[in-house]
Amino acid sequence: MNLSLTTLRAAYLAGTTTPREVFGVIAQRCEQYRDHNIWIYPLSMVELEPYFQRLESASAQDLPLYGIPFAIKDNIDLAGVPTTAACESFAYTPESSAFVVQRLIDAGAIPVGKANLDQFATGLVGTRSPWGACRNSFDASMISGGSSAGSAVSVALGMATFSLGTDTAGSGRVPACFNNLVGVKPSIGLLSASGMLPACRSLDCITIFALQCDDANAILTVAEGEDAADAYSRANPFANSTRHYGQWQGPLRMGVLAADQLAFFGHEDYAACYQKALDAIAESGVELVEVDFAPFIEAARLLYEGPWVAERYIATSPLIQERPEALLDVTRTIISAGDKGSAVDAFKAQYRLKALRKAATAVLASVDCLLTPTAGRPYSIDEVNAEPIKLNSNLGYYTNYMNLFDLAGVAVPTGFTESGFPFGLTLVGEAFSDRRLLSVANRIQQLLKLPLGKLQSDYQALSSVPVNNSQRIAVAVCGAHLQGQPLNWQLTERGGYLLSQTMSSPDYKLYALAGGPPFRPGMVIAPQGEGCAIEVEVWSVPASEFGSFVAGIPAPLGIGKVSLQDGSQVSGFICEASGLAGAEDISHFGSWRQYLAAK
Amino acid sequence: MNLSLTTLRAAYLAGTTTPREVFGVIAQRCEQYRDHNIWIYPLSMVELEPYFQRLESASAQDLPLYGIPFAIKDNIDLAGVPTTAACESFAYTPESSAFVVQRLIDAGAIPVGKANLDQFATGLVGTRSPWGACRNSFDASMISGGSSAGSAVSVALGMATFSLGTDTAGSGRVPACFNNLVGVKPSIGLLSASGMLPACRSLDCITIFALQCDDANAILTVAEGEDAADAYSRANPFANSTRHYGQWQGPLRMGVLAADQLAFFGHEDYAACYQKALDAIAESGVELVEVDFAPFIEAARLLYEGPWVAERYIATSPLIQERPEALLDVTRTIISAGDKGSAVDAFKAQYRLKALRKAATAVLASVDCLLTPTAGRPYSIDEVNAEPIKLNSNLGYYTNYMNLFDLAGVAVPTGFTESGFPFGLTLVGEAFSDRRLLSVANRIQQLLKLPLGKLQSDYQALSSVPVNNSQRIAVAVCGAHLQGQPLNWQLTERGGYLLSQTMSSPDYKLYALAGGPPFRPGMVIAPQGEGCAIEVEVWSVPASEFGSFVAGIPAPLGIGKVSLQDGSQVSGFICEASGLAGAEDISHFGSWRQYLAAK
Repeated sequence: MNLSLTTLRAAYLAGTTTPREVFGVIAQRCEQYRDHNIWIYPLSMVELEPYFQRLESASAQDLPLYGIPFAIKDNIDLAGVPTTAACESFAYTPESSAFVVQRLIDAGAIPVGKANLDQFATGLVGTRSPWGACRNSFDASMISGGSSAGSAVSVALGMATFSLGTDTAGSGRVPACFNNLVGVKPSIGLLSASGMLPACRSLDCITIFALQCDDANAILTVAEGEDAADAYSRANPFANSTRHYGQWQGPLRMGVLAADQLAFFGHEDYAACYQKALDAIAESGVELVEVDFAPFIEAARLLYEGPWVAERYIATSPLIQERPEALLDVTRTIISAGDKGSAVDAFKAQYRLKALRKAATAVLASVDCLLTPTAGRPYSIDEVNAEPIKLNSNLGYYTNYMNLFDLAGVAVPTGFTESGFPFGLTLVGEAFSDRRLLSVANRIQQLLKLPLGKLQSDYQALSSVPVNNSQRIAVAVCGAHLQGQPLNWQLTERGGYLLSQTMSSPDYKLYALAGGPPFRPGMVIAPQGEGCAIEVEVWSVPASEFGSFVAGIPAPLGIGKVSLQDGSQVSGFICEASGLAGAEDISHFGSWRQYLAAK
Repeated sequence: MNLSLTTLRAAYLAGTTTPREVFGVIAQRCEQYRDHNIWIYPLSMVELEPYFQRLESASAQDLPLYGIPFAIKDNIDLAGVPTTAACESFAYTPESSAFVVQRLIDAGAIPVGKANLDQFATGLVGTRSPWGACRNSFDASMISGGSSAGSAVSVALGMATFSLGTDTAGSGRVPACFNNLVGVKPSIGLLSASGMLPACRSLDCITIFALQCDDANAILTVAEGEDAADAYSRANPFANSTRHYGQWQGPLRMGVLAADQLAFFGHEDYAACYQKALDAIAESGVELVEVDFAPFIEAARLLYEGPWVAERYIATSPLIQERPEALLDVTRTIISAGDKGSAVDAFKAQYRLKALRKAATAVLASVDCLLTPTAGRPYSIDEVNAEPIKLNSNLGYYTNYMNLFDLAGVAVPTGFTESGFPFGLTLVGEAFSDRRLLSVANRIQQLLKLPLGKLQSDYQALSSVPVNNSQRIAVAVCGAHLQGQPLNWQLTERGGYLLSQTMSSPDYKLYALAGGPPFRPGMVIAPQGEGCAIEVEVWSVPASEFGSFVAGIPAPLGIGKVSLQDGSQVSGFICEASGLAGAEDISHFGSWRQYLAAK
């Protein structure tokens, strides 16, 4: 049984399966993969019964996640079930579910259980748990990646359609890479963290693991929303709404790392996977440009070497003070360092971070997104047990900077090693570029058409709604806004730049309007066969500044669509017919500039 | 001699005075007010000579600040002159001027000298200096306010046209209040802090003192600009550019404090001044609404009671460790507490600040700006000497939160006590609302027409360029975007709300365009005498979202201007004449909805 959201929802809508039947299959798989140490608390059939009963009186049509099974990382609250954070002494039983969990349940989703994790979400390995090392879905001797270990493996092995993880250092991305999943690390605050046990509260995100981008987008759409109770929650701008998810169209420029900034820690297979993925993406028409990853690498180191460990100390207090022996050795070693730092250290590190962020901003502004390996290499469970801190640290090389820089990321599978172990890339953008990244990741999934998860679910038809970069708008001008003309500053001071000097399609008449100064032309579509081409300039203006530009245009002019000589259409100046009273037909000049020169 | 920028520049342009003559007058005044302890380092005539000589070969026309004298707070670098921060043991002589100082000099401004301040910019009183307590320009027994003490008094007493201060807790506002000046506390990063000695580096701003808003805007225009070398420097958005400075027009809604959140610390005169100013502003048509100031008050307390004192410790290291006796007692007492806090404390305080900021955001979103007293009361120098920390703390009641919340503020004089001591209000808005606040402050100055500074410079004609709130745009819709119609979501999902259901002016024809769905009307101006009024809805849309709305409109429609029945004009749908081919004239319905109902 294929649990992808698309497939499962189609089956519910067609009435060919029921939530009870789906959970019967899931129960078998939980039993089958018991040795993988996926679950800390799987819900019993008795506990699931109220969810089933509720859905029996509801319609799949009305609930976007009707009967969709999902796993919850055990540092996120589900009402009535213990939250352990993989530390039994810490456990408490919350009365209400996390904000995000409740939204998913309200939309019809059914929790499968609470999933295993690196204790206190501290780790990228998935081995740091009293419930046992979570085993990789492709190779049980290998680590699952963490800290959202069980969340990822449960989806890869068909026990859930999607899962909730959390991500402070990379916990929502590394396990996606090692288990052939899409991992969405949303912008901080896009998903409320209410009801999530903090790791570093200023940096934490709840994340989504899914088989494909369409699923992830649908789940994000249900889960997202501003939460007054979470100080870090933020409103989602319209440009990042679900309306802007689809298949990325048009040109794409991605930043990649120079060879000497890449690190595969001796793993030739992953290095080869990386190169192969890059080649495929470049061949598909994406422009890859080298950018400087140095500020990202330095920021990554700050996360564990700097004062942010104090946040983990706060999150585990008072337990870490009163009963430190309740923590795993490795976890205690890392977190107990958090009470050593001074406020002076904290501010100094924040100054350094601010400088690095400025450098990173310049890098990100030069590309549509950044593209890095999600992890430099996988490790076996034995390797990690032998060297738990250093190898864990290697796994954060490409991930640790992300929340310190307040960025969004989407991990997407891009291939397999020769032995069949999954590899993936992470797309990185500024906060609230989530839908852009997901749409680009969708394009990559559609390009590569890989099997999904571990159960080799077939690749499925995915969203092909075309989406494009709405951050800038192209506008054709033909008069006072042309370069050198008196209103050109209205474009340049808004951050506009010239895209092309060209001609309109040969369908227009140009008029010199009555009145002025400033003297202004009006471009109108001519009766069939009477038009000519008019000189225009196409300018690129930030979408956020275009509105005030439009609002400042006086009648009879306005902004509509103008056809260019290459057949394309862009935003541009139009003129009301009533405004032509007293105007002079100057079409024969073919250009406002020519008219002015002759005047 | 009146040193306001407007007057002095007019004199230079007319050739009726010269920089040498102006500085002759300034030298006399410096001598006359020597007991006020304004200067730490006034430039000698020998040091001024190169500035004069440079201007002799330049034209006032070309330099916006030609020959304009300005004071520099002595924690900001001027090349070749010691920066002391009012601590001789700390002093160093910088090789280059601060980024902002250099821009001002490049524009023709001439430094008068380095001005006295509370040591290490720690204080709001102006008494904490080995160079002596800086005396108030109106009453020499009273404090000047600080820490930008000399900066303010030098402008009030006609020794400079404007001055640079700095503001972490309120140092750019409190002295403005006590010396009858405009004090601009810009958004963090609008003015580069390169070459400024930090107080709390994450919060510091360089500020501007001037006699009137026009002067402050002109100086800000020269001084602002992104600086790659300052990690906290930020680009100024177009909506906050100098093009948006003028006299605020149109409706205005200001948030004021409930009586039980006001604090005048027993000073009846200031309480009366406050009420009188509010009455005048309300009478001028401004809507005053009570808002909750509690989150602001709590955040204010965090500044000195929380971990941010560690930033002051960093700024004064290693001196405070190696030679603590080099600091004034009061300054050392405050700053030396900065090495006590832990990183745990720092993060906990930042969590609390984040929650308070969320509450403050809601308050600020409900009004055009917040309006508070700039200071609750003035004190005499003797009073402050007797109780240096507590009284200083009272002065921060209305100011300390501002940079912690990343807000912009403009302090503006609004009256005098019965004994003639100045009082003022502060306008508060989100970051990068600087020009909006300055334009509102300009409207208040034009309303009250008070004398300027202490020398009773006459009130002058100020900018009357009308400016208005460009954050939202009103747009008239008449078809598929009406409430209940299929494209209404394009408005609501962008954060739009309905302003009014009304009719156009009786000048239009309404057509049902060919094609669809979606079916769409076109509204066009009718020939004289043939028009009718059409039902429209006017929606308010955030300016930042309006551009993508416009770009999404297909031909033959576009956005131009639509006239309403009340005679006003708003942005709204227009239609190209060529698009009327095959269209049906449905003007007699007077409404797209009526047409649809009858169809």
